[in-house]
Amino acid sequence: MIRICSLLSSAILLLSACDVRSQQSGKEPMQIITQGSFAVGGTKLVKPGNFDVQKALEPAGQTLHGDHAYAFYQVPVNAKKYPLVFLHGAGQSKKTWETTPDGRDGFQNIFLRKGYATYLLDQPRRGEAGKATVGAELATTYDEQFWFTQFRLGNYPDYFPGVQFPKDAASLEQFYRQMTPNTGAFDQNVIADAISKLFDKIGQGILVTHSQGGGPGWSTAIKNANVKAIVAYEPYSGFVFPKGELPAPIKSSGLFGELKGAEIELSDFMKLTKIPIVVYYGDNIAKEPTKIWNSDHWRSGLEMAKLWAATINKHGGNATVVHLPEVGIMGNTHFPFSDLNNMEVAAHLADWLIEKKLDR
Amino acid sequence: MIRICSLLSSAILLLSACDVRSQQSGKEPMQIITQGSFAVGGTKLVKPGNFDVQKALEPAGQTLHGDHAYAFYQVPVNAKKYPLVFLHGAGQSKKTWETTPDGRDGFQNIFLRKGYATYLLDQPRRGEAGKATVGAELATTYDEQFWFTQFRLGNYPDYFPGVQFPKDAASLEQFYRQMTPNTGAFDQNVIADAISKLFDKIGQGILVTHSQGGGPGWSTAIKNANVKAIVAYEPYSGFVFPKGELPAPIKSSGLFGELKGAEIELSDFMKLTKIPIVVYYGDNIAKEPTKIWNSDHWRSGLEMAKLWAATINKHGGNATVVHLPEVGIMGNTHFPFSDLNNMEVAAHLADWLIEKKLDR
Repeated sequence: MIRICSLLSSAILLLSACDVRSQQSGKEPMQIITQGSFAVGGTKLVKPGNFDVQKALEPAGQTLHGDHAYAFYQVPVNAKKYPLVFLHGAGQSKKTWETTPDGRDGFQNIFLRKGYATYLLDQPRRGEAGKATVGAELATTYDEQFWFTQFRLGNYPDYFPGVQFPKDAASLEQFYRQMTPNTGAFDQNVIADAISKLFDKIGQGILVTHSQGGGPGWSTAIKNANVKAIVAYEPYSGFVFPKGELPAPIKSSGLFGELKGAEIELSDFMKLTKIPIVVYYGDNIAKEPTKIWNSDHWRSGLEMAKLWAATINKHGGNATVVHLPEVGIMGNTHFPFSDLNNMEVAAHLADWLIEKKLDR
Repeated sequence: MIRICSLLSSAILLLSACDVRSQQSGKEPMQIITQGSFAVGGTKLVKPGNFDVQKALEPAGQTLHGDHAYAFYQVPVNAKKYPLVFLHGAGQSKKTWETTPDGRDGFQNIFLRKGYATYLLDQPRRGEAGKATVGAELATTYDEQFWFTQFRLGNYPDYFPGVQFPKDAASLEQFYRQMTPNTGAFDQNVIADAISKLFDKIGQGILVTHSQGGGPGWSTAIKNANVKAIVAYEPYSGFVFPKGELPAPIKSSGLFGELKGAEIELSDFMKLTKIPIVVYYGDNIAKEPTKIWNSDHWRSGLEMAKLWAATINKHGGNATVVHLPEVGIMGNTHFPFSDLNNMEVAAHLADWLIEKKLDR
């Protein structure tokens, strides 16, 4: 029996030759060697005093573990050397990278099928990593038409012409429901500390960030040399420059006003010049200043990204900014990886990983 | 090429014969046909007024979607007819069912390998389903030594002799970090509504609950005939009885005091008599009233469960209470499904599913 099992197992390996068909039909099973989840990083606080089991509802002497990240990982058969570690953006969780609002495969499944191990994070104080060392007051906020516009589905209630977002009500509802609140204040250092601990645990890998995750992404790569590359989708805030090289703030009619970079030590900045970095932006971003605030908000982000990449490269680095419409990929929102054309967006990233020899 | 792929795919099916070896080594890949996530159920609120895209940070006319559940699902090849739908307990998320605190497979992987599709839920106002229609104030709470004791790892700092929980510090840290707060008040009806919507979407299945999930579990089965069976690990509150048949409260030295059932209409109660139900409790639960509060807390739960099952069965139902030590499974905490002997705990459940013909 064991002999038969062994032979069959070998046969499975041959199935990798069927990858092309697999991706077309989506019906071949994914071969997952192992999957699971864990908390990583974080802080432990202790209340002064001595714990008395007969007064167990009193805090004296009790602990509070918080500010860790949560990771769900999957490793496919014959996984490539570097796993992809995915960090969501503001108001999001690892759901960002899973099923799209209209029910198609997100980057989680797409890159598993391409042979990459995946780690999907809930950052500290978000989602299943909700336990925090700081309190929070959660208010009910009516803001979904703002997010529709901010995230460039269109100018509510109008979708942008040709936008790569499904226009049925059920998909939009899924999109709204995938937001989930902070359970403690956003803190870039707390997040970068936890993700750095993740890279201590798993070893070398590639960090893929979205939006607000960009800032913690750069910080993580500065902290931890196990970050072998960064892929950043639509970062806005958090761009770092060497002391003395900070560009002027970029004015914008966006609702968050002008966009500033931040100064760091040159020695830290130089760590970002040692790894390949690609930064992606979608469509409907203005080329010149405009009063259309969503379009202008992301114009300031894209302009800052270009200044930043130029600074990286001036110091000997290897950073590329890809404005997707300029390479013929049209109509993307702030979430290119879950848009209707996300297979095309993924293919562009896969090619970049091959070009940088990160796909071995 | 396609012919070869087809032959190889057929070969994979034969691998199910290797299940025993697979579970022992844990090294054969899991064959996942499809996996993904979605929000389900919930409420939509609208702020009075008209949305003006030029005043997009004002709430007028904007919406708030909240109170949905989040589900992550996986379907293995040759999946059995009924998926298992897993609902966590108080202060937990779907993490409960994933990797154990010491890094072994949880029920997610164990039952995928047994051929069941799995749906893991974050209930409304928890984890990645954090968006709520009510506000919340989150305080930092020092209470982990309480939970150590309440969840019957032992009487802190002592572990129970023979307890099925790993005694290394890293495992205990993982256990503490898997808790995550409510982002809105616990509401059994909100939870049951969302899970009932899940069963509308996926069709017939088996609901597996833990602890505080028990109450929403009974409510879901009353709401939705697609719930074909319930498996409840260590339910405490939420037992329902027909009007006029409510037992007296059970006094306890547990820190939550006496335990009461709740009255519902007989016509609703009768729906619980139409499906097989099994309720499991672990070890270190007192047989008689005791001042050891954790042991006595769960004594009241176990006693109430027995009264409840007797009432179900008196009305023609099919409910079983399994006190694990009485069937020779010793040392379990409040989390039998992630304890050191969780393969044995899973085997007992798998046998029950076979006995009830729920494994087809």
